[in-house]
Amino acid sequence: MNMADKKAKIKVGIVGGTGYTGVELLRILSQHAAVELAVITSRGEAGQAVASMFPSLRGYVDLEFSDPAIVDLTVCDVVFFATPHGVAMQQAEQLVKAGTKVIDLAADFRMQDLVQFEQWYQQTHACPEILKASVYGIPEINREQVAQAQVIGNPGCYPTTIILGLAPLLKAQNIDFNVPIIADAKSGVSGAGRKANVGTLFSEASDNMKPYGVAGHRHHPEIVEQLEKLAGERVGLIFTPHLTPMIRGMLSTIYVKLSNKLQKDEVYTLYSDFYASSHFVDCLPLGTMPETRSVRASNQLRIGMQVHDNDYLTILVVQDNLVKGAAGQAVQNMNLMFNLNESTGLSVVPVLP
Amino acid sequence: MNMADKKAKIKVGIVGGTGYTGVELLRILSQHAAVELAVITSRGEAGQAVASMFPSLRGYVDLEFSDPAIVDLTVCDVVFFATPHGVAMQQAEQLVKAGTKVIDLAADFRMQDLVQFEQWYQQTHACPEILKASVYGIPEINREQVAQAQVIGNPGCYPTTIILGLAPLLKAQNIDFNVPIIADAKSGVSGAGRKANVGTLFSEASDNMKPYGVAGHRHHPEIVEQLEKLAGERVGLIFTPHLTPMIRGMLSTIYVKLSNKLQKDEVYTLYSDFYASSHFVDCLPLGTMPETRSVRASNQLRIGMQVHDNDYLTILVVQDNLVKGAAGQAVQNMNLMFNLNESTGLSVVPVLP
Amino acid sequence: MNMADKKAKIKVGIVGGTGYTGVELLRILSQHAAVELAVITSRGEAGQAVASMFPSLRGYVDLEFSDPAIVDLTVCDVVFFATPHGVAMQQAEQLVKAGTKVIDLAADFRMQDLVQFEQWYQQTHACPEILKASVYGIPEINREQVAQAQVIGNPGCYPTTIILGLAPLLKAQNIDFNVPIIADAKSGVSGAGRKANVGTLFSEASDNMKPYGVAGHRHHPEIVEQLEKLAGERVGLIFTPHLTPMIRGMLSTIYVKLSNKLQKDEVYTLYSDFYASSHFVDCLPLGTMPETRSVRASNQLRIGMQVHDNDYLTILVVQDNLVKGAAGQAVQNMNLMFNLNESTGLSVVPVLP
Amino acid sequence: MNMADKKAKIKVGIVGGTGYTGVELLRILSQHAAVELAVITSRGEAGQAVASMFPSLRGYVDLEFSDPAIVDLTVCDVVFFATPHGVAMQQAEQLVKAGTKVIDLAADFRMQDLVQFEQWYQQTHACPEILKASVYGIPEINREQVAQAQVIGNPGCYPTTIILGLAPLLKAQNIDFNVPIIADAKSGVSGAGRKANVGTLFSEASDNMKPYGVAGHRHHPEIVEQLEKLAGERVGLIFTPHLTPMIRGMLSTIYVKLSNKLQKDEVYTLYSDFYASSHFVDCLPLGTMPETRSVRASNQLRIGMQVHDNDYLTILVVQDNLVKGAAGQAVQNMNLMFNLNESTGLSVVPVLP
Repeated sequence: MNMADKKAKIKVGIVGGTGYTGVELLRILSQHAAVELAVITSRGEAGQAVASMFPSLRGYVDLEFSDPAIVDLTVCDVVFFATPHGVAMQQAEQLVKAGTKVIDLAADFRMQDLVQFEQWYQQTHACPEILKASVYGIPEINREQVAQAQVIGNPGCYPTTIILGLAPLLKAQNIDFNVPIIADAKSGVSGAGRKANVGTLFSEASDNMKPYGVAGHRHHPEIVEQLEKLAGERVGLIFTPHLTPMIRGMLSTIYVKLSNKLQKDEVYTLYSDFYASSHFVDCLPLGTMPETRSVRASNQLRIGMQVHDNDYLTILVVQDNLVKGAAGQAVQNMNLMFNLNESTGLSVVPVLP
Repeated sequence: MNMADKKAKIKVGIVGGTGYTGVELLRILSQHAAVELAVITSRGEAGQAVASMFPSLRGYVDLEFSDPAIVDLTVCDVVFFATPHGVAMQQAEQLVKAGTKVIDLAADFRMQDLVQFEQWYQQTHACPEILKASVYGIPEINREQVAQAQVIGNPGCYPTTIILGLAPLLKAQNIDFNVPIIADAKSGVSGAGRKANVGTLFSEASDNMKPYGVAGHRHHPEIVEQLEKLAGERVGLIFTPHLTPMIRGMLSTIYVKLSNKLQKDEVYTLYSDFYASSHFVDCLPLGTMPETRSVRASNQLRIGMQVHDNDYLTILVVQDNLVKGAAGQAVQNMNLMFNLNESTGLSVVPVLP
Repeated sequence: MNMADKKAKIKVGIVGGTGYTGVELLRILSQHAAVELAVITSRGEAGQAVASMFPSLRGYVDLEFSDPAIVDLTVCDVVFFATPHGVAMQQAEQLVKAGTKVIDLAADFRMQDLVQFEQWYQQTHACPEILKASVYGIPEINREQVAQAQVIGNPGCYPTTIILGLAPLLKAQNIDFNVPIIADAKSGVSGAGRKANVGTLFSEASDNMKPYGVAGHRHHPEIVEQLEKLAGERVGLIFTPHLTPMIRGMLSTIYVKLSNKLQKDEVYTLYSDFYASSHFVDCLPLGTMPETRSVRASNQLRIGMQVHDNDYLTILVVQDNLVKGAAGQAVQNMNLMFNLNESTGLSVVPVLP
Repeated sequence: MNMADKKAKIKVGIVGGTGYTGVELLRILSQHAAVELAVITSRGEAGQAVASMFPSLRGYVDLEFSDPAIVDLTVCDVVFFATPHGVAMQQAEQLVKAGTKVIDLAADFRMQDLVQFEQWYQQTHACPEILKASVYGIPEINREQVAQAQVIGNPGCYPTTIILGLAPLLKAQNIDFNVPIIADAKSGVSGAGRKANVGTLFSEASDNMKPYGVAGHRHHPEIVEQLEKLAGERVGLIFTPHLTPMIRGMLSTIYVKLSNKLQKDEVYTLYSDFYASSHFVDCLPLGTMPETRSVRASNQLRIGMQVHDNDYLTILVVQDNLVKGAAGQAVQNMNLMFNLNESTGLSVVPVLP
């Protein structure tokens, strides 16, 4: 790489790189031709080589963790926040003022409804004005707004599957909202993050299937806000997340009542037309069902469909929760914000088996 | 054990003991105080010690596999069929005539609807008269009939969870059948049996979540037949089975619309009253969700409930698919048929972790 | 159970029942016909029902956790310590004085060598006199001493496999100690306990194989002390533990040089004679190799052997690390201490698959 | 890609693309900038789209399987054989004559010792002359010969780890061969291939650790042949493979006696000097142990070392058995044979978690 190349590159900062979305950002960005990894911070690990914490990065990432108290992130073109909820909103104003773009992988910029935000995340929003100007970063729905955005709220993993699974039907105004939408979702354990926790120990989560958050989950209001935006009316949703013994992978099985009957090939056409120009959404041929490993370690999302008596529809959506459900989608958003091809650095074959 | 004890014991035969339901029957029956394991057959393995195929049985089961062509099963008091579909119905008549009871773990005696049977299992039923007199072996619903039965159709694994999950509501006539019941079911891989098959290889099924049979599954008509029997009317069911990376365990997440609104404590009371005298069904306190490992290697089945706005209900049911979903329930049926305490040989603490 | 039965039962206390050895003790003891579970303590969980923490125990264990500061353990006939290292030795004196027997599942009474103990466990031993009188609880080696013991140091999981794997050769004085013994051991993750820890999260430990403690492991001096006791001379040992993605199970692959050549059938005879009266040790026929699942959830330990050119021997030993490697062996010791049949409450078929 | 690019590309054929090494070749080669995937054959699947069998390839591989009886492989620049043993040697002569290079991922060109080959693979070698001219494709040992080769025998997965783990010591002539080398190896299940087989079913291989081939394994003579070539003398090896419940990954724990004592930093220097110019071999800093997931889905191989009393050495080697142990190494060989940078198409960050 010569100096000219280096100058042209996007200077990237990562705040909070010790979790799974952090290491996944590093995996993707260290192989992204248009990116220069400038800085990565961690309060607890300042001074440690990133590759000594994540040996998979040996030979690919030479950075050390920096102390967030010292480092000046405004030298970056874009900063990713792979932090707990509530961190990005504290720093967004300063970055935005400096012209640095912000992509938050936590929840600070996901919901416009502040009441819901404050109820579910138990904190007052630090910068409601910036939130109002921010964009919900789901490119297949709002590619143009993403491209113009200064601040992105990167969607939650569950919402990505459910919104993309329903968007074609919502746009076609073909859901009967008298019957609630049911989203029965199964997530790999990495979705719970890389924090010491009894419930996600191997000996607890392995060889076990477990619903959680059945009475209420933070992603519920996020999903509903986006579905209602697309529907233009109130949407009822029953959402059941399940912890599944796999590292990565998410499958959402969605059940809806159609307002107008559809033949199965009409459903397929509706979906494949809607996603015709979306590289990362793959509508499976009728009769083919998606499995999570078919997208492992990639930004791909696949959708299968099954019609019942032409008036109920089962939609099955798979993604890698750490890629399309987190770090990959964040990079996809970055590509759009910097006018790059949307799939730059993301066009890789999933790992199977 | 003295001779007197031996005489009093139930002489048990097992046909087809080389699969997972077979070895599970052996595990349970070899520790059952009232049982004498008399004979176990296998065409392919005749002459081999059972414990050389399943080393877990070393020291507990001394039998060899017998050639089914030679052995006289009518000397047994009861014969379990742990065979592919279609085997038990060929031998039932001879056994019944000899006064030997029959418990079939396959599908031959599960459905009274012969049209459905022949469509889904692609064979003509060999003994429709015996089928008519046989009993669907789900003791919590029809304990008395089981006790009187000569021939038992042991329920499929999925049907057990879904029927027991819905029975209290059906008996209370509190389901609104204008909206189809949705059963989103997750099964451990052992449910697919112990046959060489690419789809259930470790490298295919591990770290992967996969729907299957979405367009139609053999257990669908079996479930519907039983639900309609309890409902006294037509029942619509959308049933989605998923292959889950665990050895044992099944979770069915069931969504129904209530016809009369219920408060959450009313739901709990309805269920716990219904199962008050059923040792193996455990209704979880409100706010508690079941996980599959809480029943691992046991005949227990646990039910959790979540009410939404008092008119939709999510019911979550877990069992070990090889025990309550197969071999354990078969032994529970045998206990009733021989006038033993229903839980004899089955009252063991689940294995956790 | 009538009152007479109740009086005759062994009153058992468990200190620290919230870890995996604790819940495993509860699983075994709640089904042990000669035991009355009297009390279980936990500082953090006092007042909580045990079965609300471990739902597998619902219907089998009605106890609540008691506050250790309040409870009087001297009313028990025997107290199991399923606690971190260093707890049992603080309470042993008081219990011994009261005539209560002590079985410590941690390391306080495993090693007579205080220098090693203090080096590896970083604490001064609180009761060296009681330690001197205590017995290393491995019944197949020292059944008589166990039966007479007041205090038992229950062996570590790795040591159990390696000591039992080598005892017949050591007794026959047929190891060439010029070449170090190599023990390459693989453990399920539950061996690391039920504490919040990043390294044993599902997403870290699944689909991964990892050596640890290669430079030194606490079980090394424990193993060597016992091997030297049996050998009557200094023993060199290279010990490599590996974390393996399974919940339960341990396999130790042991390599030794023989001092006198042996034919393979001589090796088999040596082992099977040595363990002829040991119910829980199963010497596999020549050519048969053990696998961990063949002992899952049972107190069984199986040994396979492979001779190379008649002078090197590979010994392969499997056990369930939580049963024969911890709670099961503790109950086996209890049985002997109370003059019961050694296998009472432990004679169960392993769970396979 | 313009026509000029296309002309310059290496035309690649794959014979037998339905197994795990086949799909892994496709994953790597479809993203290799200098390669044109020209043809892939399968007797059983001719006419089927490759991506319909492996949905991970949808959007990346447009090929259909061709009938091997019809297709002319001599139009290819290089043909990879991802077939059972014995196929490549039948077709090698024709291809070599046509100037097409051959890389066999099976065993046909791994061993020069025909007696061993015929004993272990139960077939007569079809082309001993071509075998004699072929090269064992382990670039870190014989980079120059690989670059000149017409036919490559791609090493077995176990041999790769053990040969690379020992090469620096062998070159330094610092192994005491009076004591046999011990290689205790653990492999992910994908090493057994994608064929229907009871032993590698999820329900058999999950949550289980199992030695196999202890009495003798096909890779034993292959390893010994290469070690003896490097040592210049007879080498004794005890080799114990174990089946481990992970999809990918291999860890070999190797124990050797040094002939001259070494301090630990001398060992590290020896290894890191030896591999200084080998991009894919990573010598870990002293005190750091490798884990298999640190190389998942990459061509990386990592080595850890532990010295005992300066005269015994434990060497721990990890790789992804499907990449550096199979398809990745094959592509690495291809790169050398076509004068490309050795890491072209292979320089990717491992997938963690």
